[in-house]
Amino acid sequence: MKKTFASDNYSGVHPKILEKIIEVNTGHVAAYGYDEITREAIDEFKKYFGNDIEVYFVINGTGANVLSLEGMKRKVSAVICPESAHILQDETGAPSKITGMQLLSVPSTDGKLDLKLAKKWLSFKDTFHKPNADIISISQATESGTIYSLEEIKEISEFAKANDMYLHMDGARLANAAVSLGCSFKEMTGDLGVDVLSFGGTKNGLMYGEAIVFFNKSLAQDFKWIRKQNLQLLSKMRFLSAQFIPYLKDNIWYECAKNANDIAKYLEQQLKNIGVEITNEVLGNTVFATLPNEIIEPLQEFCHFYIWNVEKKEIRLVTSFDSNKEDVDTFICKLLELKNR
Amino acid sequence: MKKTFASDNYSGVHPKILEKIIEVNTGHVAAYGYDEITREAIDEFKKYFGNDIEVYFVINGTGANVLSLEGMKRKVSAVICPESAHILQDETGAPSKITGMQLLSVPSTDGKLDLKLAKKWLSFKDTFHKPNADIISISQATESGTIYSLEEIKEISEFAKANDMYLHMDGARLANAAVSLGCSFKEMTGDLGVDVLSFGGTKNGLMYGEAIVFFNKSLAQDFKWIRKQNLQLLSKMRFLSAQFIPYLKDNIWYECAKNANDIAKYLEQQLKNIGVEITNEVLGNTVFATLPNEIIEPLQEFCHFYIWNVEKKEIRLVTSFDSNKEDVDTFICKLLELKNR
Amino acid sequence: MKKTFASDNYSGVHPKILEKIIEVNTGHVAAYGYDEITREAIDEFKKYFGNDIEVYFVINGTGANVLSLEGMKRKVSAVICPESAHILQDETGAPSKITGMQLLSVPSTDGKLDLKLAKKWLSFKDTFHKPNADIISISQATESGTIYSLEEIKEISEFAKANDMYLHMDGARLANAAVSLGCSFKEMTGDLGVDVLSFGGTKNGLMYGEAIVFFNKSLAQDFKWIRKQNLQLLSKMRFLSAQFIPYLKDNIWYECAKNANDIAKYLEQQLKNIGVEITNEVLGNTVFATLPNEIIEPLQEFCHFYIWNVEKKEIRLVTSFDSNKEDVDTFICKLLELKNR
Amino acid sequence: MKKTFASDNYSGVHPKILEKIIEVNTGHVAAYGYDEITREAIDEFKKYFGNDIEVYFVINGTGANVLSLEGMKRKVSAVICPESAHILQDETGAPSKITGMQLLSVPSTDGKLDLKLAKKWLSFKDTFHKPNADIISISQATESGTIYSLEEIKEISEFAKANDMYLHMDGARLANAAVSLGCSFKEMTGDLGVDVLSFGGTKNGLMYGEAIVFFNKSLAQDFKWIRKQNLQLLSKMRFLSAQFIPYLKDNIWYECAKNANDIAKYLEQQLKNIGVEITNEVLGNTVFATLPNEIIEPLQEFCHFYIWNVEKKEIRLVTSFDSNKEDVDTFICKLLELKNR
Repeated sequence: MKKTFASDNYSGVHPKILEKIIEVNTGHVAAYGYDEITREAIDEFKKYFGNDIEVYFVINGTGANVLSLEGMKRKVSAVICPESAHILQDETGAPSKITGMQLLSVPSTDGKLDLKLAKKWLSFKDTFHKPNADIISISQATESGTIYSLEEIKEISEFAKANDMYLHMDGARLANAAVSLGCSFKEMTGDLGVDVLSFGGTKNGLMYGEAIVFFNKSLAQDFKWIRKQNLQLLSKMRFLSAQFIPYLKDNIWYECAKNANDIAKYLEQQLKNIGVEITNEVLGNTVFATLPNEIIEPLQEFCHFYIWNVEKKEIRLVTSFDSNKEDVDTFICKLLELKNR
Repeated sequence: MKKTFASDNYSGVHPKILEKIIEVNTGHVAAYGYDEITREAIDEFKKYFGNDIEVYFVINGTGANVLSLEGMKRKVSAVICPESAHILQDETGAPSKITGMQLLSVPSTDGKLDLKLAKKWLSFKDTFHKPNADIISISQATESGTIYSLEEIKEISEFAKANDMYLHMDGARLANAAVSLGCSFKEMTGDLGVDVLSFGGTKNGLMYGEAIVFFNKSLAQDFKWIRKQNLQLLSKMRFLSAQFIPYLKDNIWYECAKNANDIAKYLEQQLKNIGVEITNEVLGNTVFATLPNEIIEPLQEFCHFYIWNVEKKEIRLVTSFDSNKEDVDTFICKLLELKNR
Repeated sequence: MKKTFASDNYSGVHPKILEKIIEVNTGHVAAYGYDEITREAIDEFKKYFGNDIEVYFVINGTGANVLSLEGMKRKVSAVICPESAHILQDETGAPSKITGMQLLSVPSTDGKLDLKLAKKWLSFKDTFHKPNADIISISQATESGTIYSLEEIKEISEFAKANDMYLHMDGARLANAAVSLGCSFKEMTGDLGVDVLSFGGTKNGLMYGEAIVFFNKSLAQDFKWIRKQNLQLLSKMRFLSAQFIPYLKDNIWYECAKNANDIAKYLEQQLKNIGVEITNEVLGNTVFATLPNEIIEPLQEFCHFYIWNVEKKEIRLVTSFDSNKEDVDTFICKLLELKNR
Repeated sequence: MKKTFASDNYSGVHPKILEKIIEVNTGHVAAYGYDEITREAIDEFKKYFGNDIEVYFVINGTGANVLSLEGMKRKVSAVICPESAHILQDETGAPSKITGMQLLSVPSTDGKLDLKLAKKWLSFKDTFHKPNADIISISQATESGTIYSLEEIKEISEFAKANDMYLHMDGARLANAAVSLGCSFKEMTGDLGVDVLSFGGTKNGLMYGEAIVFFNKSLAQDFKWIRKQNLQLLSKMRFLSAQFIPYLKDNIWYECAKNANDIAKYLEQQLKNIGVEITNEVLGNTVFATLPNEIIEPLQEFCHFYIWNVEKKEIRLVTSFDSNKEDVDTFICKLLELKNR
């Protein structure tokens, strides 16, 4: 299959990540994360986020989000999130199934949490008949391709603190946001009061593996039990954790996200050049565009991508760590050909 | 405490219901519903709904709704409901906690399900990443005091069937709706394709007790196990089921709901007479009105009721089976006194 | 149906309890426990257990046990109990379904917890692969009709404390145990370090209703939310809580349990007199006996009871607050008639 | 770290498996299993098990077991298993947490299910108060190192069918059992009536990844939803599924398991030669032995292994696909040295 713009998990593994996996395949090491490689990977996280964190490796993105929420859950809790949130739209109901919590959705046109609208879930916070909204979850970058400014995150964080709520950030595409904002991971998360972070890896060049970063360490208590009980513990952990060593140490995360973002900008420009309407501000690695209906299907067959909104004829194009200008040019040529048919 | 308009569960038990409870307190009978009294109560339901149903008695309204949903749940399911639904707003997240299902809310201004907006949850019904929306839950009467017409219910039911979904009706105030529409219980439910009905009792004169009526009998399979496993089985069942015998046989349900609806109309008229704005069409036993902020609190102290919408200064007044014109007049006098202060 | 020895929930309501229910059926009172009657009932509990407790009324016995466990649950917990425990054998798996916790059973011949055998669940308490056994649940009286001495309870409690575990007591038949031991409720529970108590009512003369008594008040935090979310909150609470006022204030609990225990002793003696083997020491209101197979069925038809152990031909006979010597004599006569046939 | 006998997940990845992972890292392929590599892997399973199966890849062993059970679960179910079962002892309570089902344990001295003792969970199968025991789970090989004969599995399977129960097999070490019995995977599973199989990979040379094989295809309905909802779906699936291609096609499974079993026999022999008591019949890759207390700790420091039973001073030694005679000899030498100190 040629390279597509379907999703950043259609791509494979960055060569330096794969090299590291091969490198650690020697002899026996303790299972379940009690090995030196995993310790080294955790140390790399501390170089980025400071020493006052706890880090746990989990397997996939849904796992990272659901277990973050499980860690934040009190006796009776509920989660406020934008209607477009991955946890609400794209995880088959896993958050409610696994944690038992209700998701309280807030209408959103741009993927961001609208605090004014979120407040409706708080007006009755002290009535025990109401879902106990004490967790907020936001995504950085969002599923709509937008990116919160540091000020916006801070405002949400302060709102959360003021209302005795925890703040979770789904950072499946955190690297793309960091590149776009030109800030560090820490400046976007712990420094602003995020309690728990799903730190993505798979969508940015890893084979598999995500990390949960606890800035609020009290929430990490018993997390070893939680991780195993909720099916997110790998036995041969070294092969997962090792990937994060070059990812962080050698700035593979930056290289991958920078390329994806840059190619997304190039794709946006090329689409505009041939008169295609772009429906979002391209900040990360996601481009939304509208296309005539009769073009969508043959173009998908040529190079797979997802329809985002059937009614609006809006499609979503996602670039990857290994996307390049040739991939874009090939796509644009085919699109032109179909348009002119 | 004098009579209030806070809720229809502030009132006590209808005298004839209490009489029946006293009557069945003789000797030993089989526990857990294996008694003649329970069988007789079930027969009364069949007189109303036809023989082709299954009826199970449960204890409270949240129990009736949650266990209805548990009965309808397939391997992986999710529930579409209006944003104002009791299951979403007023059950402390019990549906997600107990059934593990995600609730998918649909914006609603009048408490009814807007099918056009509901469709957004279906567009991706065949993608296993999305919550598997295969149950619809509506309330009759709604939490906003509106009542679906038979045509509206039929349309929702046909939509459900067309999309291979089950239809649940929360009938905590079904009697008020039946009186208002002038139709039978059956005409509003089974005849229109409702699969499972929460049949309310407590809000209309019972001491405690609700019934779950299965029109789709295949969903009642194993329900005895489900009821016990989900904490809704009473051991001395006779005292619960007995209440439904006079309730149905002697038309207590009609007498109670008719009175509550009539007094609500009277209350509406009296409020209008003194210039209070009524914000809903009064069809059942609920009146919504706006009041000046400075009046709300002293009036609540005099006669308790709930604020429905703080921003809009909207209050909710609920009449009960034992409300009467004197209660209304006393309330109106106090309101006038406060207004003129 | 004549009086049976099937279960103490085949009987009805003690007349004084019913009187109280009738008495509180006047006018409107706040729902969900915010009423004076419920406050008075709580005060009665404090007269028995001291002021340093929290009391919550729930609906049924399974609800009392499951919600006690839900209150005690930490992030990841598991429950040690004797194999004969009601929570393990007689609640349709509700504890695991509702709380998500695994039950760790300990073999038991007499219904009591054998601490030596229980220890096997602790040997690996610090390994996160193992169920995190941090709750112990025992029943007083046990399902086998035995009753823990105060010393035995103390030993289990000290074991629990020494291992950082919470102790739950299922007191569905606590009154029968108190009468038998000649001690107070408090001496058997809070004084010995019990953290949470399911305080039974239904099996000893109430219409419905149990109480959860928290000696460890930190575990009661958020319990109002827990109770509603787990389907055990009644709206017209006064009718439930009121029953406990005469039950405690007028010593109905003692009168009922004393009678049941006395009749059980009488039943034991009469059975022995006609040569029936009694298989337990009769301490409370339960008598276990073996009967010839050919007698069991016709005797059940005459007066219902349960077979406890098919292989051993062991039956269980339970006396109730309203059982009397005539009931026993009638039963014995029939038994004799069947034996001599 | 030198090679140990701690567990078969302390070892790394078989070189040919790693080669395959490297090989499939080219270009973009559809995510979530919609790729050709995954299809090919499924085809390899069908060569072993016949075409009448469904296969789903999951991530880890606990995931494979828990999701098998979730697939088998009916409305209200419970699981019978030997007390030594991995699902009961070694999964942190995940089966109850994720599926809500109660585990009903059966005492076992050799890790196998004793049908006579299992029957106690069936005697009340039709009473809705009891856990609804309709699933049996056994392990092949067992956690105690024993291996069921084909006749034994057949007997359990027939018992399950006769009682309308489903049969699950935890095959984390199925390859070791197949080598030991000299039979095919199919002869041990589908041919004998196993409904669902957890087919292990990680413990026998894979980097990560297990498969769930449904012989009873009706239980696989909606499994795509179940897998995602329960956190066991990988996005870059090709890297998981690809491993099973050489594993099955090139008989890596046999090579790995044969070596592990052979080295276990060699280890057993060498231990016996120096007078160490072996406490199990060594059939697969697990050796249980007793050692003097003072030797255990220094020997663990030299070469890690687990203590199985503290009281009995019993240790567990597990060989791996890459264990060899030198590893054994080094271990034996150290042991001798410690003994003679």
